[in-house]
Amino acid sequence: MIIDIHGHTVAPPEVYQFQGRLLGSRGNPFDKFPELNDEAINNQLLKHIELLNKVGTDMQFISPRPYLAMHSIKPERVSHLWTEFVNNVIARQVELQPGYFRGVAGLPQHPGADIRDCIPELKRCVEELGFVGVQLNPDPMEGGAPDPPGLGDEYWYPLYEEIEKLDVPILIHSASCCSPRESYTLHFINEESIAIMSLLESDVFEHFPNLKFVVSHTGGAIPFHMGRFRAWRLRSNKPDFDESVKQLYFDTVNYSKEALELAFKVIGSDNLLFGTENPGTGSVMNPETGHTFDDLKPVIESIEFLTEEDKMKVFEGNAKKLYNLNI
Amino acid sequence: MIIDIHGHTVAPPEVYQFQGRLLGSRGNPFDKFPELNDEAINNQLLKHIELLNKVGTDMQFISPRPYLAMHSIKPERVSHLWTEFVNNVIARQVELQPGYFRGVAGLPQHPGADIRDCIPELKRCVEELGFVGVQLNPDPMEGGAPDPPGLGDEYWYPLYEEIEKLDVPILIHSASCCSPRESYTLHFINEESIAIMSLLESDVFEHFPNLKFVVSHTGGAIPFHMGRFRAWRLRSNKPDFDESVKQLYFDTVNYSKEALELAFKVIGSDNLLFGTENPGTGSVMNPETGHTFDDLKPVIESIEFLTEEDKMKVFEGNAKKLYNLNI
Amino acid sequence: MIIDIHGHTVAPPEVYQFQGRLLGSRGNPFDKFPELNDEAINNQLLKHIELLNKVGTDMQFISPRPYLAMHSIKPERVSHLWTEFVNNVIARQVELQPGYFRGVAGLPQHPGADIRDCIPELKRCVEELGFVGVQLNPDPMEGGAPDPPGLGDEYWYPLYEEIEKLDVPILIHSASCCSPRESYTLHFINEESIAIMSLLESDVFEHFPNLKFVVSHTGGAIPFHMGRFRAWRLRSNKPDFDESVKQLYFDTVNYSKEALELAFKVIGSDNLLFGTENPGTGSVMNPETGHTFDDLKPVIESIEFLTEEDKMKVFEGNAKKLYNLNI
Amino acid sequence: MIIDIHGHTVAPPEVYQFQGRLLGSRGNPFDKFPELNDEAINNQLLKHIELLNKVGTDMQFISPRPYLAMHSIKPERVSHLWTEFVNNVIARQVELQPGYFRGVAGLPQHPGADIRDCIPELKRCVEELGFVGVQLNPDPMEGGAPDPPGLGDEYWYPLYEEIEKLDVPILIHSASCCSPRESYTLHFINEESIAIMSLLESDVFEHFPNLKFVVSHTGGAIPFHMGRFRAWRLRSNKPDFDESVKQLYFDTVNYSKEALELAFKVIGSDNLLFGTENPGTGSVMNPETGHTFDDLKPVIESIEFLTEEDKMKVFEGNAKKLYNLNI
Amino acid sequence: MIIDIHGHTVAPPEVYQFQGRLLGSRGNPFDKFPELNDEAINNQLLKHIELLNKVGTDMQFISPRPYLAMHSIKPERVSHLWTEFVNNVIARQVELQPGYFRGVAGLPQHPGADIRDCIPELKRCVEELGFVGVQLNPDPMEGGAPDPPGLGDEYWYPLYEEIEKLDVPILIHSASCCSPRESYTLHFINEESIAIMSLLESDVFEHFPNLKFVVSHTGGAIPFHMGRFRAWRLRSNKPDFDESVKQLYFDTVNYSKEALELAFKVIGSDNLLFGTENPGTGSVMNPETGHTFDDLKPVIESIEFLTEEDKMKVFEGNAKKLYNLNI
Amino acid sequence: MIIDIHGHTVAPPEVYQFQGRLLGSRGNPFDKFPELNDEAINNQLLKHIELLNKVGTDMQFISPRPYLAMHSIKPERVSHLWTEFVNNVIARQVELQPGYFRGVAGLPQHPGADIRDCIPELKRCVEELGFVGVQLNPDPMEGGAPDPPGLGDEYWYPLYEEIEKLDVPILIHSASCCSPRESYTLHFINEESIAIMSLLESDVFEHFPNLKFVVSHTGGAIPFHMGRFRAWRLRSNKPDFDESVKQLYFDTVNYSKEALELAFKVIGSDNLLFGTENPGTGSVMNPETGHTFDDLKPVIESIEFLTEEDKMKVFEGNAKKLYNLNI
Repeated sequence: MIIDIHGHTVAPPEVYQFQGRLLGSRGNPFDKFPELNDEAINNQLLKHIELLNKVGTDMQFISPRPYLAMHSIKPERVSHLWTEFVNNVIARQVELQPGYFRGVAGLPQHPGADIRDCIPELKRCVEELGFVGVQLNPDPMEGGAPDPPGLGDEYWYPLYEEIEKLDVPILIHSASCCSPRESYTLHFINEESIAIMSLLESDVFEHFPNLKFVVSHTGGAIPFHMGRFRAWRLRSNKPDFDESVKQLYFDTVNYSKEALELAFKVIGSDNLLFGTENPGTGSVMNPETGHTFDDLKPVIESIEFLTEEDKMKVFEGNAKKLYNLNI
Repeated sequence: MIIDIHGHTVAPPEVYQFQGRLLGSRGNPFDKFPELNDEAINNQLLKHIELLNKVGTDMQFISPRPYLAMHSIKPERVSHLWTEFVNNVIARQVELQPGYFRGVAGLPQHPGADIRDCIPELKRCVEELGFVGVQLNPDPMEGGAPDPPGLGDEYWYPLYEEIEKLDVPILIHSASCCSPRESYTLHFINEESIAIMSLLESDVFEHFPNLKFVVSHTGGAIPFHMGRFRAWRLRSNKPDFDESVKQLYFDTVNYSKEALELAFKVIGSDNLLFGTENPGTGSVMNPETGHTFDDLKPVIESIEFLTEEDKMKVFEGNAKKLYNLNI
Repeated sequence: MIIDIHGHTVAPPEVYQFQGRLLGSRGNPFDKFPELNDEAINNQLLKHIELLNKVGTDMQFISPRPYLAMHSIKPERVSHLWTEFVNNVIARQVELQPGYFRGVAGLPQHPGADIRDCIPELKRCVEELGFVGVQLNPDPMEGGAPDPPGLGDEYWYPLYEEIEKLDVPILIHSASCCSPRESYTLHFINEESIAIMSLLESDVFEHFPNLKFVVSHTGGAIPFHMGRFRAWRLRSNKPDFDESVKQLYFDTVNYSKEALELAFKVIGSDNLLFGTENPGTGSVMNPETGHTFDDLKPVIESIEFLTEEDKMKVFEGNAKKLYNLNI
Repeated sequence: MIIDIHGHTVAPPEVYQFQGRLLGSRGNPFDKFPELNDEAINNQLLKHIELLNKVGTDMQFISPRPYLAMHSIKPERVSHLWTEFVNNVIARQVELQPGYFRGVAGLPQHPGADIRDCIPELKRCVEELGFVGVQLNPDPMEGGAPDPPGLGDEYWYPLYEEIEKLDVPILIHSASCCSPRESYTLHFINEESIAIMSLLESDVFEHFPNLKFVVSHTGGAIPFHMGRFRAWRLRSNKPDFDESVKQLYFDTVNYSKEALELAFKVIGSDNLLFGTENPGTGSVMNPETGHTFDDLKPVIESIEFLTEEDKMKVFEGNAKKLYNLNI
Repeated sequence: MIIDIHGHTVAPPEVYQFQGRLLGSRGNPFDKFPELNDEAINNQLLKHIELLNKVGTDMQFISPRPYLAMHSIKPERVSHLWTEFVNNVIARQVELQPGYFRGVAGLPQHPGADIRDCIPELKRCVEELGFVGVQLNPDPMEGGAPDPPGLGDEYWYPLYEEIEKLDVPILIHSASCCSPRESYTLHFINEESIAIMSLLESDVFEHFPNLKFVVSHTGGAIPFHMGRFRAWRLRSNKPDFDESVKQLYFDTVNYSKEALELAFKVIGSDNLLFGTENPGTGSVMNPETGHTFDDLKPVIESIEFLTEEDKMKVFEGNAKKLYNLNI
Repeated sequence: MIIDIHGHTVAPPEVYQFQGRLLGSRGNPFDKFPELNDEAINNQLLKHIELLNKVGTDMQFISPRPYLAMHSIKPERVSHLWTEFVNNVIARQVELQPGYFRGVAGLPQHPGADIRDCIPELKRCVEELGFVGVQLNPDPMEGGAPDPPGLGDEYWYPLYEEIEKLDVPILIHSASCCSPRESYTLHFINEESIAIMSLLESDVFEHFPNLKFVVSHTGGAIPFHMGRFRAWRLRSNKPDFDESVKQLYFDTVNYSKEALELAFKVIGSDNLLFGTENPGTGSVMNPETGHTFDDLKPVIESIEFLTEEDKMKVFEGNAKKLYNLNI
C-alpha cells in the first residue's frame, strides 16, 4: 500500500472565488460560507484520484494548500474564516472519498496572535472532523517583520501541549512569502531548515516527548549540510547531530533522485515518509524520464541500496505508525 | 438610452482562482496569465446582460471590482500583474459585447510607489484597449498606515497630467480596508468624503482645468453635511461651497430614495450621472419595493421635482458628454 | 423648554495660555493649575448665555471642546492634566450659571493607554462634580497609526461597565486629526460613521443593555447611506438595519434643513436630540436665511412633517429622559 | 549699555488662544491669522519693559518662546503657520518699542522636512522685518525618534549658507521634549552639549567661516567637563579643545554665580554675551539674595576676577560686534 | 587610605576576542565561555596595579567597562552571556588581588526586557562572588528609540527592591550610544543629568529609603546648572533643590580642577566619593600639569577650601560607609 | 597545486580588542587605527600556515571573517572603519607571506546605505592593495528588517559595474544574524539559496556578462533541491535550470562527502572551486575519519567518479582562470 502523507486539497474554482471575496472584504461584513455542491467538489476529486491512480498512490493525506493560507492578511479574522472554510472542504472531500483521503488540518495562525487562538479549530478538526494530522506554519509572518519565534520557543508550547494530547503528527510547512527577493517555494525550504535547527537546539522534546514532527520537502537544506552541523555539535560536546536529527521525521517531497539518495543515507528509512505533493510543484513532465517530477514511487524503488523493508516503511509503515492508521 | 457609468466586471471563477494563486505566490515565480476561453467569459457576460436588461440599462461602463484590487498586497508586482490581467478580461468582455459595455481601467497602484508606475497601464488601456475612463483609488494603503496623500496633493500630478491628456474621466473609488473597525463598504464612503474635500481645497483644477472627476456613491457624506462646509467657506471668505462642489461629478449609486432626493437638491442634475454598481452591493431584493436596491431607474423616475430634461441628463446626456461617447 | 445637548465650554484666553504652556512643557515640570478668577470665567459665560438667549435655548450641556482635547500629545500626562483642568473649568461654569448649563465630562484618553486610566476622572466628574454625561473620543490616535479599536471592541468594555453603572449617556465625538489630508471637522463625520457601524455590528448592547450612546452631527454619513446598509443586512439575514439604528441616539448638529429632514425620516423623532454646538462651526451668518447656521430651532420647527409631539421630544423630552433630568 | 541677547516675546493671551486653535485644527481648515490690537500687545510690552528697567537692561533681543515652538506637531504646516504668526508678533513689538527690542527669528522647522523649507521665513524676517538674528532648534524632533542630524551634519548646510549670506548670528536653542523622562528645561541643556560637540567635531567652520553660533545657557554641560574633552583631544592629536571652544559664543543664562565664574574661566570674556531670558525660568525670587535669579547684572559685576573691559564686552561690546548693531 | 570607587576591569585581549565572537554569533550557537589562564589575567592586573600605585590609589572598585556593555545588541542573550562572562573575569581579578580590588557588578540589561531578568545575575554577583556594588545603565537602548523609562519610573522598582535588600550602592553609568550625533562619552554626561532629575522628581526614595545611588562623572550637567533647578523648585513650592541633590552621591571623575571646585561647593564633601576611572578617558598626560588628567588625588588635595576632614571623607570615609567596607 | 579560495584572516587578539572598542565607541570619537606589530601578525600567520601545510593546501585566499563584519551596527561609520582596518590587516598578511596568501576584500556595507559608498574601499583593495577578489554580503541587515534587495535587484548595479571593470570574482557570503531563531551559520546557507535564485531569475548577466559569482558553502540548499527548480523552469518555459546554475561558481565548503558527491553530480567540476574555510567551522576532528571536517582534499580525492582532470580543475585550474592568477 502506498500512502502519500503530503498532499493538498484540490478544490473547485468557487473556493477561490470565495477566497478573493474574503481577501477583498477582510471578513467584514461576513455572513456565511458559500455553499458548494457535492458535484463540483467531486468533479475535482475525481481528477485528483485519477492523478493518484496513475502513479500508484493508494491513499493521500490532504491539507490546505499552504501558499494560499493568508495567515498574514490583516485583520486576524481573515485567517480564521479562510482556514475554517478550507478545513470544511477537506472534511467533505474525505467524506466523499474515504478510501483515498485523510484530512490534515490547517490552523488559523496570524502574526503576533496568541497561539492559543488556534486550538479550537485544531480540536474541531481532529475531534469532530476526524483529521489525522495538523499542518503548522513556522512563519505566519509570511516573510514579513518581525521574525516569528522559532519552533523551539515557548511561544508554541500551548499548542504543542494540545497536539500531544490529541496525538496527531505535525507537518511543518510554511506559506506565502511577501519578500520580493524570496519566492514562496524557496521560502518553504529556508523555513524548514530554520524549523529543524530551532527544534533540535531546544527543550521541546523534553517537555513534549510524544510530539511528532514531519518536516516537509526532505528537510530543507539540512541533509545537504550535515557536516557543518556535525562539526558544531562535536565542537560543543552536545549530543551527536545525526542522533538528534532522528527526533524528527521527513517526507520525500524532493524531486531529484540524487537528493533522495542523500536523504536516505543521512536520515535513514525509519524517519522518512513517502510524500509527493501531487498535484503540485512537481506535476510537470520531466523530459529526461518521461514521468512527472512528483511521480516519486519509481524513483524510490530504483534506489539500489534500499531494502524491501526500507521501502515498505517509507511507503506505508512509518505513516501507519505515526498517524495511528488502521487500514 | 440608459447608461450606467458605475459597473464592475463579472468574471468567471477561474479569474479568482488566478487571484488566489497570485496572492499566494506574490508573483514569484510568475510565468504567464492563465488562458480563459471565450465561452467561460461569455457565460458570465450573458448573466450580466440579463441583469441589465431586466432593469432597463442599455449600456454599462465596467471597471475592475474595487474591493478585489489587491493594491496593498506586497510586493508591488502583485498589483501590476493583477491589474493588467483584470483589465485584459474587461477588454475581452467589451470586445465580446460592444453593444452593452465600455471599459474603465484599473490602475496598478501600490502604497508608497511612484505614481508614474501607473502610467504605462493607463495608456495601454486607453490607447490600445479603447477604455473610456479610469478608476482611481484614493487610498492604495487600503486602510493601512501611513495615510496616503490627499487627492489634492502634488503626489498625483504626474498621473493627472497624463489623464488630462488622454481626456478620460476619473471614477474615484477606494478598495479593500485592512482596519478591523472599518468595513470596505464603509471605507468607500469615508474615502469619498476625504477625496472631495481634498480636491476642493486644492489647486488641482487650476493646474488641470480639464480633469473630470466622478465621485462614487453620490459623494460619501458630503451632500448630507453641506451646511457644515458652507459655514466653513463663509467663515473664511473662500468661494461658495455649493459652487465648488460643482467642479466634481457624482454618480447615483445610493440605494435609498430619500438620499437621492437630497443629492439632486444639493448637487443638481448637471453633475449627477446614473450608476448602479449592478450587480453588486445593492443586488438584494428590497422587501418594501419588490425590486432590488440597485434598480435605481424607477427610483429616479419617481422623484417628483425632476424634469424630463433632468432625467435625460442623468440617464444619458451627462455620461455622453463627459465620456465623449458617440453612440 | 429647549435643551441643547451638544455645546462646548467657552473659556477665557487664560485657559488656552495654560494649554500652550502644557503643550510646551508636556507637563514636566508641572506644579499646579493656574488660578482663574470668577470674573474672567463669568465674562465669557455671559457672552455664551447671550448667544443662547438669542436663539431661544434654555439650557445647554457643555463638554470640553473636542478638537482641543490633546489626546494624542505625548506623553500621556498631558491628556490627564488638560482634561482635568478643563473639566474643572466646566464645573465652575455650571456652578456659576446652574440655570443655563450642565456638565458633560471629557476623558483623559491616550493612544494605546489602558482605558481604565479614564475611570477615576469619569467618576470624579459624575460623582463629585455632578456632570450629566460623558464625551467619548472613538479615535484617541487623532488620525495617527495604528487605528484604534472600534467602539464595538472589548477594549472599551471596562469603561462601558463603569458608565453603565453611573447611568450617564455617552456623546460620541472625535477630536483633532493629524492627517494632512483630512480636516478635523471632516474627521468628526468619518469617525461617527465608523463608530455607528462598529457598535451596530458588535455585542455591546448585549453586554451593556442600558448603555446610551448619542452620536454627534446626526450620525456622520449613515443616514445618507441607509440603502447600502439595509442591503447588507438583508443579504446576510441579520436584524433589519433600520431597527438596529434605533439602538443609538443622534443629535441635530447638522446645518442644512434638507439633511435634517432626511434624518427625521430615517431615524425618527424618538432618537433625535436637539443640539447645535453653539457657539461653534455653525456660528456664521447664513446669507440665505439671515440666521446663523447653528440657529436650528426655527429650522426644525419649520419641518412640515413633524408633529408638535415630535418637536417636543427632540427639543426637550428625549434629553430629559436620557439624561435623567428633573428640571 | 546693557544688551540682553537672550529674551523671548511676551505676548497677550490671545496669541495662545490662537495656538490652541491651530493645534486643534492642525491648520486645516485655516483662513487667516487673528488680528491683535496694538493695545493688547503694548500692555504686555509695558510689563516686559518694566521688568527690564528694574534690572537695568537697556535692550533685549526677543525671539519666539522656544518651548512653545510646536516644531514636531504634525503636519508640517502647523510649524509654518505658528512660526510666521509669532515672528509677526515680534516684529510688531519691535516696531512699537524700537528703543528696547530687536527681533530674533524663529524658523518653521519640522522633523524630516527639507531644511530649505525654512529659508523663505528666514529671509522674510531678516530682509523684510529687520530681525538681527535667528534662533535654531537642533532637535526639531522634540525628543522623539529618530534623532535629528547633529548640527555638524551636511543636512544643515543649505540653511547655514543662507544665514552666512544674511550675516546674522544663530542662537542655538531647543524646544519642547516629548520624552516622559526628560523635561524640556533639561532637554535644553543636553541639546546644547550635543550641539557644541557636533559643531566642534565637524567641518562646518571650514565651509562657513563667517557663521556665528551663540549657544544658550552657557553651553550646557561642556564648560563643566572641559577636562574630559581636553583629554580626548590630546589623545587624538586634534586641535586643543580650549581653542576649539572659542569658535563658538555663549550667553550668560545660567542662574548661579559659581557656574558663571567657571564659565568666565574656561570660555573667557571675548566669547560670552550677556543674556538672562528675563522674564522666564529665572524670574523667581532667590531667597538668599533678594533678587530674582535672572537678575544677572549684579552677579556678573560682582565676579572679582573680571576687569571693567571684560564686563563691557560681555554686557555690550560682544553683542554689538556680533549682531552688527549701530546704537 | 585612598579608595577609588569608579574603576573598570582591565582585561586581556582574549576577553575582547570572545566579545567579537559573541557579537558575530549573537550567542547562537553558544557552547561555553573561553578559558582564560591566570597568567594572562594577572599580567593585565599587574599593569593596572602599577597605574594605581603610581598615583597613590590603595584600592579600586572595578566594574565592567560600560561602553562595551552590548546592552542593545540583539538578541537579549548576547547581553546575558557577555555580562556574566565579564563579571566572572572581575571576580577572578578580585580573587587574585584582593588587596587592591573589589567588584562592582554589571547587569544584563536589554531594551524592552523585563528588568527582573537582571536579578539572578545581580544576586549571583553579590551573594556568591562578593561584589560590593552594582552598575546600572539608565539607557539600555544605548541612544536608540524608544527612550527608556527614567530611573524614577516604576519600571525599575523590582530591581531597586532587590538591590535595597542586598544593601549595595548603585553606580549610575550609561553605555554605548548609537546616535551618530552623540559620542558615548558625551552620552554618559547627558544620561547622568537625566538620571538625577528623574530620581529627584520621583517617589523612589519614599519607596526605597535605603537605596544609595552614586552618579558618575560628578553628576553630568547638574552641578553647573543648580540655579536653573533651584528656580524651578522655588517656583513650585517643592523641596529645596540643594537639599534634594543630597539624596544622591557623586564621584569625582571630572578632569578639571575648576569643575571639581564647583562640585565641592554645590554638592559638599559628604556626598562626593573619590573616583578616577583610571585607566580610562583621563589617562592622558596633561601638558599643563605634567600629570595624567585622571591623577585626581593631587588636584583634590590642592583645593584650598577643603579641610582635612573633607578630604578624608572623599578619599576614604564616604566609600567605607556607603559600601559597608571593613578594611 | 592546491588553492583554497575560501579562507578568512586569522588575526591577533589585538584586532578584536580594537573591534570591541569600535563597537563600544561607535567610531565617535575616533582617532586612528591601533598599530599592530609584524611579530603579532606573523605569529598568527605561522599557526595559520601550519594548518594549511598539514592538509596540503598551497595557497589560500583570505577575506575578513564574515560573521564579524558588523555591517548592521549603527551608525554606518562603524562598518567603514572596521572593514578598512581588517582589509589592512589582510594586506599586511599577504605582504608578509605572499607565497601562501592572496587577499579578498571586505566591503563596508550598511543597511539602507547607498551601495556606491562601498566603491572607494573596493578600488583601494584591488588597485592599491592588490586583492584578487571581493566578498559580498547579500544581507547587510544581518537578519533584521526590512529585507535587503535580492542580488538580482538594480540596487547592486553600481557596485557590479565597478567590480566587472576591476575584473575580480565576487564571493557571496553573508554575515551575522540578529534573529533569535536563526544562527549565523544557518543564515549563511539560507542567504546563499536566496542569492542564487535572485541572480538566476534576474537580468544581471545580461547587463554584466563578465561578472563572476562564487557562492559559498556549495550553494546553500539549491543543489539538494534541483528537482524543485527544474520543475518550475519547465513549467514556465524558461531556460533549463541546470544550464542556468552554471552561470555561477560554487566552492566546496561542505563538510560531508555525500553532499560533495551530490554537488559534483549536479554542478559539475567546471563550476566548483576548492574551498575549506580552514581554520573555521570545520576545524573539528571528525571521530569517524580521524581528520578535521575541513580537511577536504582527501575527501574530494576519494570521490570515485571524478577524473584527474576534474580534480585538477577544482583544486587549481578553475581558481587560476577565474581569479587571473599567474603562479
